[in-house]
Amino acid sequence: VRQTARGRRPGTPDTREEILAAARELFAASGFGATSMRSIAAQAGVDPSLVHHYFDSKADLFFAALQVRVDPRVALRPVVEAGPDGAGERLLRVLLAVWGDETSRTPLLGLVRGALEPDGATLVRDALFGLVLGPVGQGLGIDQPERRMTLVASQLAGIILLRYVVEAPPMVAMTDEQILASYAPTIQRYLTGPLPD
Amino acid sequence: VRQTARGRRPGTPDTREEILAAARELFAASGFGATSMRSIAAQAGVDPSLVHHYFDSKADLFFAALQVRVDPRVALRPVVEAGPDGAGERLLRVLLAVWGDETSRTPLLGLVRGALEPDGATLVRDALFGLVLGPVGQGLGIDQPERRMTLVASQLAGIILLRYVVEAPPMVAMTDEQILASYAPTIQRYLTGPLPD
Repeated sequence: VRQTARGRRPGTPDTREEILAAARELFAASGFGATSMRSIAAQAGVDPSLVHHYFDSKADLFFAALQVRVDPRVALRPVVEAGPDGAGERLLRVLLAVWGDETSRTPLLGLVRGALEPDGATLVRDALFGLVLGPVGQGLGIDQPERRMTLVASQLAGIILLRYVVEAPPMVAMTDEQILASYAPTIQRYLTGPLPD
Repeated sequence: VRQTARGRRPGTPDTREEILAAARELFAASGFGATSMRSIAAQAGVDPSLVHHYFDSKADLFFAALQVRVDPRVALRPVVEAGPDGAGERLLRVLLAVWGDETSRTPLLGLVRGALEPDGATLVRDALFGLVLGPVGQGLGIDQPERRMTLVASQLAGIILLRYVVEAPPMVAMTDEQILASYAPTIQRYLTGPLPD
């Protein structure tokens, strides 16, 4: 029987799901940065140690709560490890692989739509910059990583929007190779090209 | 007293507003292309001649219905008339002017958010490509205008998304001149640079 009382109690088979539900609620309300493991435990009515038992870090909990099956930190590791040369094309290849696969695209679409609600913007700002773009920029060791990754993000976001959300016919008609050939030079320039003052 | 019956009747002070409400409903449900002036008249319960009396064209009615105070066809005319050289920068300047002005930004934000709903995508696809990007590409006389304007749209959409919808701090912190210097070369390359096969 599902336990509904909010007092502290030991873990049950439902505990993990309840922690995830509490996390989704708090992340959506307050964003990633302002939500603590402790506040999620309180919301779920469990001891904080139980949250740490199920999830190694707040980032792990975040991605699990979003039900995104691809952990961007894992997917992006090869992009970072091979260094800045050609990173634009490698980054695009990850995007095309993740968004081209229906099992990862569906939850991501929900995430993107939610992000565009007034309340969701905080969450995405935090998640996108704190957990995806920031680490990539720093991992690549490029100068002005935040500014460069913002430029990169703006182009990647536009591709995602037109190809997978709005499904603009000319964008859908382009092959992956045409996407790569069209956009990799742009992304690479944002990563390692000249920056205006 | 507001007339609520749906039979055909002559114009009243409310007629224009009722036509706009009917237009918003049908454009949102069926998209721009599949909605006719005649169907909007039927939905509003007025004679089609009244719709033509208030609005010269379906595009006029569309922009009025969206309550976007800036008609993109007018705003973009200088971009087109000066030809392809420097069109990337001029296009960005229009974007920055329109989105930088709160009276035009607010209705546009509603439009963008609505566009990302599953039902709204059709509307935006039609409006964006049929009424904004298509005429610009053709007006500039560039080769493969649809493909080039799609590339342009993907970058402009990403800028709008990060700067005005999600309000990503590094993007908000950039000055208009930094935006221009960062993105104009990209837009120009999409407009007039080499295209992959």
